[in-house]
Order: sequence, then structure tokens, then C-alpha cells
Amino acid sequence: MITEQIVERLKSIMGSEKRILLEKADLVSYSYDGSFGAYNPEIILQPVSTEEVAGIVKLANDMKIPVYPRGRGTSLSGGPLPVHGGMVLDFSRWTQKLIIDPEDTVAIVSPGVITADIDREAQRHGLLYPPDPSSSHVSTIGGNLAENAGGPRGLKYGVTKDYVLGLEIVTPEGDIIRTGGRTVKNVTGYDLTKLIVGSEGTLGIITEATLQLIPRPQATQTMMVIFDDIIDAGKAISAVLTSGILPSKMEIMDQASIQAVEEFQPIGLPIDVDAIILIELDGHPIAIRDESEQVKQVCLEVGAREAIIARDEESAENLWKARKLVSPAIVRKKPTKISEDATIPRSKIPEMFRRLQEIKAKYEIDLVVFGHAGDGNLHPNIITDKQDKEEMKRVEKAVEEIFTAAIELGGTLSGEHGIGTMKAPFMEMELGEAGLEMMIRMKKAWDPNNIMNPGKIFPETKGQRLVLVHD
Amino acid sequence: MITEQIVERLKSIMGSEKRILLEKADLVSYSYDGSFGAYNPEIILQPVSTEEVAGIVKLANDMKIPVYPRGRGTSLSGGPLPVHGGMVLDFSRWTQKLIIDPEDTVAIVSPGVITADIDREAQRHGLLYPPDPSSSHVSTIGGNLAENAGGPRGLKYGVTKDYVLGLEIVTPEGDIIRTGGRTVKNVTGYDLTKLIVGSEGTLGIITEATLQLIPRPQATQTMMVIFDDIIDAGKAISAVLTSGILPSKMEIMDQASIQAVEEFQPIGLPIDVDAIILIELDGHPIAIRDESEQVKQVCLEVGAREAIIARDEESAENLWKARKLVSPAIVRKKPTKISEDATIPRSKIPEMFRRLQEIKAKYEIDLVVFGHAGDGNLHPNIITDKQDKEEMKRVEKAVEEIFTAAIELGGTLSGEHGIGTMKAPFMEMELGEAGLEMMIRMKKAWDPNNIMNPGKIFPETKGQRLVLVHD
Repeated sequence: MITEQIVERLKSIMGSEKRILLEKADLVSYSYDGSFGAYNPEIILQPVSTEEVAGIVKLANDMKIPVYPRGRGTSLSGGPLPVHGGMVLDFSRWTQKLIIDPEDTVAIVSPGVITADIDREAQRHGLLYPPDPSSSHVSTIGGNLAENAGGPRGLKYGVTKDYVLGLEIVTPEGDIIRTGGRTVKNVTGYDLTKLIVGSEGTLGIITEATLQLIPRPQATQTMMVIFDDIIDAGKAISAVLTSGILPSKMEIMDQASIQAVEEFQPIGLPIDVDAIILIELDGHPIAIRDESEQVKQVCLEVGAREAIIARDEESAENLWKARKLVSPAIVRKKPTKISEDATIPRSKIPEMFRRLQEIKAKYEIDLVVFGHAGDGNLHPNIITDKQDKEEMKRVEKAVEEIFTAAIELGGTLSGEHGIGTMKAPFMEMELGEAGLEMMIRMKKAWDPNNIMNPGKIFPETKGQRLVLVHD
Repeated sequence: MITEQIVERLKSIMGSEKRILLEKADLVSYSYDGSFGAYNPEIILQPVSTEEVAGIVKLANDMKIPVYPRGRGTSLSGGPLPVHGGMVLDFSRWTQKLIIDPEDTVAIVSPGVITADIDREAQRHGLLYPPDPSSSHVSTIGGNLAENAGGPRGLKYGVTKDYVLGLEIVTPEGDIIRTGGRTVKNVTGYDLTKLIVGSEGTLGIITEATLQLIPRPQATQTMMVIFDDIIDAGKAISAVLTSGILPSKMEIMDQASIQAVEEFQPIGLPIDVDAIILIELDGHPIAIRDESEQVKQVCLEVGAREAIIARDEESAENLWKARKLVSPAIVRKKPTKISEDATIPRSKIPEMFRRLQEIKAKYEIDLVVFGHAGDGNLHPNIITDKQDKEEMKRVEKAVEEIFTAAIELGGTLSGEHGIGTMKAPFMEMELGEAGLEMMIRMKKAWDPNNIMNPGKIFPETKGQRLVLVHD
């Protein structure tokens, strides 16, 4: 409960009262994110300095008030949802610091900086910030760090975590610490940097990050490979990746996603097919020309109908635009989209496609499959209507079965969206009791009052199950 | 204290009594590693299964007996030293599992497997296991994982941690847990995998690892660049790395290391120079031919005397042999070598060279500098004689000053060797009190009885200082 007295103390901590929001309308607009559910906070604070954050967190910890850090709210797993009320810390105003050091090839950023802006600045120095989640033009780096965001380039370049060299953190008790540094090699004690990245704001608040940049590849080459059977597409992915070539992106779109895009905004994709794979190669111009031909041959050998190499920049951009349009296109069919990111070992992609087809038929749901096929990070999306309670019951079961299938195939609940609220009930299924217990011990050691983003990652009650719609 | 009764219980846990060593000679041969100091354990156990490890650790935890995991003892920071006696767990016998899955491009290994054997097996499938610590032909993967070993390829490919997808762990209380999995993308809860890797055996024992492999580059190209002034060499490194080219290796050898190698085993290196840089490029054959010329031009522009591109495989191998000979060559001068791995941001390399020259002159010590210049991970080596107590006092001071210089320049105590025993007193200098406290909390939460490799990473007494020689 945030009393007037607490509000007064917050006013003295915050440099400006304008960055304290208490109006009902504000509370409502901070009650949801890109996932499911809505929960009103009691207050919104928009800090723009480490000292403000430390002050807020110290107070929150003293008073045992939940603290929910938030970027631009694009989370697909409920990361910023204030499920127990309390304070939302909105970092979207804290965009001031975006420094590129070309000599050390690092970027130093404040948490509110938009992800795509980092790469745009890096590009001016011939450098690349590889992580490219779909939402990179709206999401903040703070949110990307908290959730360890992925993206298509993960195949060749890895995920957000792989580019974080150092952090400044406010701990759950309000202390300011620095982890890592400016060097790639650093084995001084425990790797708190890589522990904090992806911990979904449950172990502390990131107030600054030092990110590694790499030389920008000289050239890229895009191609589209067409399949009459999605299972063959799965085989083609494996065949390419064991041929000695590592594309920078390898994305799949199934028939339903192609159809949706063409209905939404005609790009000229072939619609009489079962699946397409979009492939991007990057590197030295001569090398990728040579490699494109090899990739084409490999795909044709495992049963692709056709492989079309984009003839220029414009047609390449057109193909990637199609991929970006999948999400907005599919929500036109029905209002509710449940976007999963169950990830399986590459060799299990054909088998996962089979399982998804079965689940779709069994529960009679609208299931669209696309995603980062190259690293096994698929995005099965269920398109539904949350008002339709009968259908939602089937959806709940289908989601459970998707999670089970991923784990049975040696995969994981979440490749890049995070656990948040929705997948918490399934944690023990993947980690086992002892594995989950070791994570809980860490949380308790760092956050004894459980004020940092409570209600995320860990199931709050034993035997908790997925519930999308409450009767 | 390991009583006869405990030995009896250990016999019932271990599948064979032959893998329990109690002889005085054995205890002595497990008392040291590649670093400083010697401490006798009370017993040596050589487990070859997870169940044996779990059984041993449960017993050790019950009886509060220190457990010291050990691979082949090549640690340069005291990782396996049994500083409080107790049990040494020697994993060098557990070499049974080395499975390559070419489709998922992963290797699954037991902890005793020799690191270089993993890459040798990967190569048979056209794959690469990038981490290449100098000791890779003798060190175990278990030791590499515990210490997060680096190596020359770290510049382009990162370190051991960057290639670990999943682990099986025995916790300090003897539970068996699995972390991560087989997929690159995995955000299911806290990243225990990357926390355990590099935790120097203080949070649990690694009993199996799933490692990521990548397509093996088609070709490599080596070159040697010669400098009349080591400061210019530092500038050349920066210039190359900001030119848009990322070499796979970029190693420096100063005048003293060149001299030592040529005296030890003449390779034909130029000895009338201040420093050389060895550079390796890898990738598509046409691309690297083109890039070699660019690198050469860049180096000449910033003052290199000459840049020689190796004309064939043999002359390339010869150059890399020279680099590998530095360590054995320098110990011929005096019997004691103190090998540091203080790491600084790349842009600070010239300044660090200046500081090292000053430290060398100030304390009148034999200081040789070589190492992984491209990522700022230098190896200042002090060559001395531990019998010479007067000189050792100067050495202690020089080591302290090297650490201080690295931290003042925004670097870190250790890039790849680990903290172990010798650098523990300096942890607070780098991390601050609160930063160190958060690591200690984690250790206590996981290992309440402090049985897992106690005496490492964390200073055991407040204000502890570096002491190499006791009076």
C-alpha cells in the first residue's frame, strides 16, 4: 500500500515531480504489455538516474513494496506486468546515454535507449550491434537485457547476452554495483553480468550497460527457398547448417503465415506452397556469392521446389518485410494472439512441425508457425479470441502440449521471450525440483523481501497451472 | 579429518577401490598445480560417474570435508589446490564420453576429456570447437569449464563460456541438476550454465557438458608484423580492429620473448625488433587473401617496419610454434615464472605497455610481455627464483602494481586464468564491497557448509594481501 507519506518521500527522491504518475488513466495504461492479462500498479515512476533508482529501491525494500521495471512494454511473456500492484518504474524516458567507442568497439547505453538506435549509431562507425529482436524499433535496450532478447541474427551471432560486457545494477536492496567491464575476457569472480541479463528484472535493475560491437559485414545476400512440404524445409535447414556454411539468418514461414501476409499486404510471395525459408548470408562479397550458390544446391538436393536469390537490395528488403509482416498480418484474423517461442534442437525441427500439426488438428485451433528456424527457435502463434471462453479452454490445453512437445524433444520452454507469468507453472517440468530450487535460492539470497518483479519466473503456488481465462 | 570410517564409506560409494588414493606419494603429487604453493590433500578420489560424484559430495557435505575438483592441474591461478586439505576429486580418468552430433552441431563430453580431442573429433565432421587455451593438448574440458579458459581465438570467437549450451552439475549438497540444454536460445529462468562456467569449482561439480560447435572455416592465412616500437604495435592492433576486419588471432611478443624463443629453439624470428604481432585471418579463401592485404596496409600506415604474409601452411605453423614456445623458453632463464593475465580495454594497450615498462624498471625484475593482444588480454610474465626472498618481495610489489594498473585502465584482474588463491586479495579492489558481497551471498546460498573448493576466489580474511614467500 503506497501511502501519501511514501509518495512524499518519492517526491524527494525523484528530481522532478513530473516523472511521478498517479492518475487513474496512467495506472491503466501501465497495466498491460504485449502478453496476456492486465494489473494496475499504484504508482508510476520515471527515473532518469542511477541515484533515483537506488533511492526508490531502498525505500521500496524498506516498505516491502513490489517494484516492476518496464521499458516500452513489448514483452510477450508478461515481464513488466505489475501482478502484485506496487510501483512501476518506467525507463522509457532515460534515453540520454548512447556513446559509441569505436576504438574499444563498445557502446555505453542508458536503459531507455531504443535497441535499433544502438545499431544505427554503430553503423556510423562501420560497426554492428547484432541482436535484432522484431521489436527492436520500439523496444528499449533495458527490456532486451532483462529478457535476453533474441532475433533472426541469433543463428550466426547469438543473443543479447552474448554482447553484454558490463552492467551497472541497482540491487534489490538499493546498492549500486558494477559487473564485468569493457573487456571480452573477464574471469574475475562469478559472471554476474550474464546472470542478470535474462533474469527478467527479478535480481536487480540495470541502469547502464556496456555492449560489445563487431565489425559490420561488408555485404549481405538474401534468398527465398520454396517447399511443397514443410517437413522438407526442416531437412533443408539441417542440410545447409551441416554443409559448412553459417547464414546470418534462416527464417521459416508456413502456409498460414504466407497466406496471412499476402491477404494483409501483397508482397508477391508464392501462396501455393507449404512453406518458405528466407536465408541471409553476410560477409565478404565474393564469399557470399559463392556460398549462395552452394546453399541453393543443398536446398534443391533435399527437395526444395525452387531457390530464388534476391537480385538486388530492394527485392531482398521486400522479402524481409514479408517476414516482419507476419505478426501484424495474423492478428487481423482474430483479436487475440498467443505467441510462443518454444525452442528445440535443430535436428528435431521436422518432428516439431509434425507435433504442431497434430496439436492444431486435435484442438481445432488456428495455429500459425513461423520463426527463427535455423536455431530451432520457432514461433507457434495461436490466433484466437479471449472472449470465446470455450475456445480459450482448448487453447490452454494446446499451449501446454506445445511446451510438453518442446521439452520432450530436448528443447526449452522459451528461446527468447522469457518465462514471465505465463510459463512459470511449467518451470519444474523443464528444470526438475532441484534445478528450480537452486534458482530460488539465488533469488532469496539477493532479494530477501521479494520486491523485485515478484510473480515472475517462479510458480507462486505449488502445482500452479496455465490459466488464460478465469471463469 | 578423514577417518577410517569415512574411507570405508567412500569405498562403498566408489565403483572401484583402485580409484581411491591414500599413499603419501600420491598426496604429494596432487598438492600443486601450474601456479604457486603446495598443499597436501588427505585423500584422492577418481570418480568416473555422476553417481559417484553425488555420493562423495553428499558425504563430504554431511561431514563438512572440503572437496577440491581437479582436471590435469594446469591451472595458473591455483584452481585445484587443496588449500584446506580434505578430498581431491581427480577427473582425469573420466574420459569416456566424447560424442559429436553433427546435425545439432554439438559435442557432449565427460569432464576428463582433453580439450584438444574435442576439436579433433569436431574436425572430422567439418566442425570447430573454437576455444584454444595454450594448454589444450593437456588440459581437461572440466578444468577449462571451471576456469572459463580463453586462448588466442578468443578475439573472434570468444571464450569457453560462449560455447557451453548445457551442463550436468552435482550441487554442493550432492543433488544432480541439469542446466541449459542443446539449444543456443534458452531463456528459461536464470542462466545457471554461464554462472557455473568460470565459477572455479566453487558452486558445484560439472559432470557433463553440451558444447556448441560451429562450421570450420575453410581457410586460414597467417602473417607476422614487425615493429621497432612496441607502442606502435599497440596502435596497429587498434587500427586493424577498427578497419572492419576481425582476425581470428592477434598475438603479441615483445623483444624479451622473441629473444628467449630464439635462444631456446631458433625459429628465425627477427631479433633486432621491439615487438612482433602474429595475425591469423580465417574464412573464405578469396576473402582472407583480400583482407590480408588490407591488414598489411593498415599496419604499415601506423608505423610497422614490415608485414610478412606466410607463403604456405608450413611457414604459418612455424610462426605459431614460436608463439607457443614463449612460455617454455622464458622459464629457462630462471626457475620461477609468475604468469599474469591482467586484461585491459583494447584502446589502453599502448598505455599498459608503458606502465609495464615502468614497473619492470622500478622493481628491477625480469618482465616478459606477450599474449592475446587483440582482446587486450596480455600475459606479463615475471621470471624469478622463489628461493631469492629479497627479489620475491620486489616481485610481490610488482604484481600488485600490475593489478592496480589494469584496474585503473578500466580492465580486470584476470582475463582467462581465474582468481584462485593468488588474486583473491584483490577482488574488492575491482568489485567494490557491495559487488563482492553479492557474489558471497550466492556462494553461501548454494554451499552453506563451504565445502566446494574453499579458499578460492574470495579473500578469507579482511585486508588479506598477496604473499608469495613466507618469511
